[in-house]
Amino acid sequence: MTEMRWWGWGVDGHDPDITPKLAGLLREELGISGEIVQRIPEASVVELPASTLSDAAAKALGDVDTSHGTRLRRAVGRSYPDLLRLRAGRLDTAPDAVVTPRDHDDVLRVLRVCAEHDVAVVPFGGGTSVVGGLEALRGEHHAVIALDLRRLDTVTTDPLTLTATFGAGVFGPDAERRLQAQGLTLGHYPQSFEFSTVGGWVATRSAGQASTGVGRIDELVRSVRAATPAGEMSTLLVPATAAGPDLRQLLVGSEGALGVITEATLRVRPRPERGRYEAWSVPDFATGVRALRLLEQGHVAPDIARLSDEPETRLSLALAGDGAGPQALERYLGLRGHTGGCLIITGWEGGTEITARRHAAAKVLRDAGAISLASPIGKAWRKGRFHGPYLRDVLMGRGVLVDTLETATEWGSVSTLRDAVAAAIQGALGRAYVACHISHLYRDGCSLYFTYAAAQEHGDELGQWQRAKTAASDAIAAHSATITHHHGVGHDHAPWMQAEVGDLGLEVLRAAKATLDPSGIMNPGKLIPA
Amino acid sequence: MTEMRWWGWGVDGHDPDITPKLAGLLREELGISGEIVQRIPEASVVELPASTLSDAAAKALGDVDTSHGTRLRRAVGRSYPDLLRLRAGRLDTAPDAVVTPRDHDDVLRVLRVCAEHDVAVVPFGGGTSVVGGLEALRGEHHAVIALDLRRLDTVTTDPLTLTATFGAGVFGPDAERRLQAQGLTLGHYPQSFEFSTVGGWVATRSAGQASTGVGRIDELVRSVRAATPAGEMSTLLVPATAAGPDLRQLLVGSEGALGVITEATLRVRPRPERGRYEAWSVPDFATGVRALRLLEQGHVAPDIARLSDEPETRLSLALAGDGAGPQALERYLGLRGHTGGCLIITGWEGGTEITARRHAAAKVLRDAGAISLASPIGKAWRKGRFHGPYLRDVLMGRGVLVDTLETATEWGSVSTLRDAVAAAIQGALGRAYVACHISHLYRDGCSLYFTYAAAQEHGDELGQWQRAKTAASDAIAAHSATITHHHGVGHDHAPWMQAEVGDLGLEVLRAAKATLDPSGIMNPGKLIPA
Repeated sequence: MTEMRWWGWGVDGHDPDITPKLAGLLREELGISGEIVQRIPEASVVELPASTLSDAAAKALGDVDTSHGTRLRRAVGRSYPDLLRLRAGRLDTAPDAVVTPRDHDDVLRVLRVCAEHDVAVVPFGGGTSVVGGLEALRGEHHAVIALDLRRLDTVTTDPLTLTATFGAGVFGPDAERRLQAQGLTLGHYPQSFEFSTVGGWVATRSAGQASTGVGRIDELVRSVRAATPAGEMSTLLVPATAAGPDLRQLLVGSEGALGVITEATLRVRPRPERGRYEAWSVPDFATGVRALRLLEQGHVAPDIARLSDEPETRLSLALAGDGAGPQALERYLGLRGHTGGCLIITGWEGGTEITARRHAAAKVLRDAGAISLASPIGKAWRKGRFHGPYLRDVLMGRGVLVDTLETATEWGSVSTLRDAVAAAIQGALGRAYVACHISHLYRDGCSLYFTYAAAQEHGDELGQWQRAKTAASDAIAAHSATITHHHGVGHDHAPWMQAEVGDLGLEVLRAAKATLDPSGIMNPGKLIPA
Repeated sequence: MTEMRWWGWGVDGHDPDITPKLAGLLREELGISGEIVQRIPEASVVELPASTLSDAAAKALGDVDTSHGTRLRRAVGRSYPDLLRLRAGRLDTAPDAVVTPRDHDDVLRVLRVCAEHDVAVVPFGGGTSVVGGLEALRGEHHAVIALDLRRLDTVTTDPLTLTATFGAGVFGPDAERRLQAQGLTLGHYPQSFEFSTVGGWVATRSAGQASTGVGRIDELVRSVRAATPAGEMSTLLVPATAAGPDLRQLLVGSEGALGVITEATLRVRPRPERGRYEAWSVPDFATGVRALRLLEQGHVAPDIARLSDEPETRLSLALAGDGAGPQALERYLGLRGHTGGCLIITGWEGGTEITARRHAAAKVLRDAGAISLASPIGKAWRKGRFHGPYLRDVLMGRGVLVDTLETATEWGSVSTLRDAVAAAIQGALGRAYVACHISHLYRDGCSLYFTYAAAQEHGDELGQWQRAKTAASDAIAAHSATITHHHGVGHDHAPWMQAEVGDLGLEVLRAAKATLDPSGIMNPGKLIPA
């Protein structure tokens, strides 16, 4: 497990260059010079509120860490507001202590102590939340701890049932290393894969880049074990059941607000022998949307299928730089009448059968108007699949507001929703660059993932972001789309949960919480709006 | 929609013959002569308790039917205890009235009136429950109505998203007729298909005979609309979401205990052009279990895959009679060393691609030790796929206790569990014939479906059945298998819900019920144990 840089995404060595093309795009579209306008402060100078944890609680909890460095590293996730506050050198909230339980029973013990001593609990996995899921909110309680789950790191596999049982704190690379040593894979690769945990994936109902082929985490989960203030809640490990409502799907996505997922049994599969990644071009977004729908409904979708709209395609080409490759590609696309068109990335992972799958998909794509790009774009996507978030840190240092948000809707609404969300962001920010891609296909619809950028409003960076977030979220809700396809709810999306699940849905969630967490210590202010 | 015979399964014209072979089996195994020992009484003489519905409630409800015939037809499902009581000519419980609401809003109105007038509500679809899901229990209330949903019979389709929205009261054949007229199919064929409703399938988390290929109803559901005493609860129609727990999966399987599912949007697919049904033989059950596992884990499972154990294979051959076909088959199996072996049925439904799928599956089956039977058994299974339940009525008239029960477990536990359940039933009944088949495959395990028979204990038929049911259910729970794979919980399985979901799971279900049904009028005594 690798710690992320305390102030931003990931580790050193992956920050992208500001290519001349990207610099030009920033200048023309947003009026930004591209000069560095902000330096990262030293970690030690970041102001944190004093710890309010009572001596009695600290003593009852036992091994608590209240050092500045540990509290700082467990204080926030990696949302744009989180990064703004870290860069500003001051956090208004931070855990009063960090507790690192040994195992499931120790988590139960810590929750009992916290309930008894009026201490709120924020479960902490990899710390990659981009929706305020880790904000150290106390609620009505006298203190709040971060419950660091990294010691719950067991992995056991069952080749007969093709399942594996993971401790919540197993990090992505560790999970795959241990499975692949036995010829297996989970195949779940969210963009946060390198720094996030299996427990976090289950608790946030995560999707991976290959989920079109492999299935979302909620489809992979066979059973869940949770520690709650009211005790253990587990689901039976059976392949299927008609024994009433599926309580497993109540724990999946519960984001630490009902309890702590300490263990999950997930489907695994044989480790793929090979991967193949390709690129295609379509003249416009609508053509691409139709092509992806036909792939999925024709049961020939690749494991990975991504369609960038025109602005995102332009951004991708700008990031690729001014080398001979990108220039030749643009010339080629111009000759084929796809100037200003849209890129599609397709990826397959498996055995020899992927050749037949590729051919079947290629036929559908060609018939739908796509042209195959004999270019290294597909492979380049594969190589940089986890590197997208680094761009945000680089741009923030240059005075750019840059954020992402995502949703999902039915096929018939994709273009309308894209336009509405883009217009909402433009409306809120005045001058903005809004790009969109589709990355997860379903029989009835798909995900939409937006990246947007604007010049930061100096002095009101948070307010500016909130206006864009609210406008985009309202547009999503107005179109009956989901407030989140895979980022989760956290603190930032909680105000839109009423639109998502209705008044009675919220009441049911509150009733479940009152049962499992009667004193309301679990992750206050997240998931369920007050 | 076709009404079932008031006293048993289905309609006239499908009762199987007692073949000489079957008669021999009954005699040898159970000491039963095969003579008819009981006649069906006239419907009009069946005693029902007097209606206790208050005049005020009847007036507020409006259009209530309290006639003997209507109450009788909505009083029970089709479990063995239900049929015993009907044949005995006396029911201790019956709905005090039957109400048939017009639409979703009318259901909401009826529930409000019932809550106000202290009337319990049993939602009624096709009336095929075999787990006491329709028993007219009043709970603490002064009266109970059956809420007949047959007027909620709308079907709308969306070919772009391959979904269809069904009113809860649409019967199976009607659903398929209306879909197939548009080139679509739902493909959900529980054995009750001809007499059950879409709403019932969703409310009981149903599986169909082709669910190995098509998916269980819980996998097909895209969204649910429910009327509850607290108001409407609906889920967003989006392809996927990470917005917290999946409340859709709380309504699916809620069996009328949380509210009434009035509408559901389900995945549909293009209507298959052809079907192919084949039969195979394996020397023993364990070989068959392994073959099915390899099919499923190798991604080449047929849409329909069934393995009968040795006693069920013997029973099937006895039912097939003594014609030239079955005799030739038995000779052939004897020559191949499969005397006393196990039958496998495989079925594919789709387009031209089923040929390649069949060949891939055939290779796995042969490699695993199965031999292909050039016999009409596969086609015969297809033809009689809905006729299994008729045998029960025929045997009951001859003094036979005959019932079915089902569960699911992981691959490694299949044979152990089968033996344990069979031993439990034998132990409870003394002399019994217990047969088992597997009919639903999952990556990690499969379903097990038991049919058992014994000579009825005259005068204590119900007690005898309860002893067998309890013994089998206890054995299932002791092996951490599920108490039901597709029959549902109803009244009969409720005592094992604690083993299924744990104390906290039950508390969460009770909390959800208290939120949606604060006065506890919805289907008292079902799903959630008192």
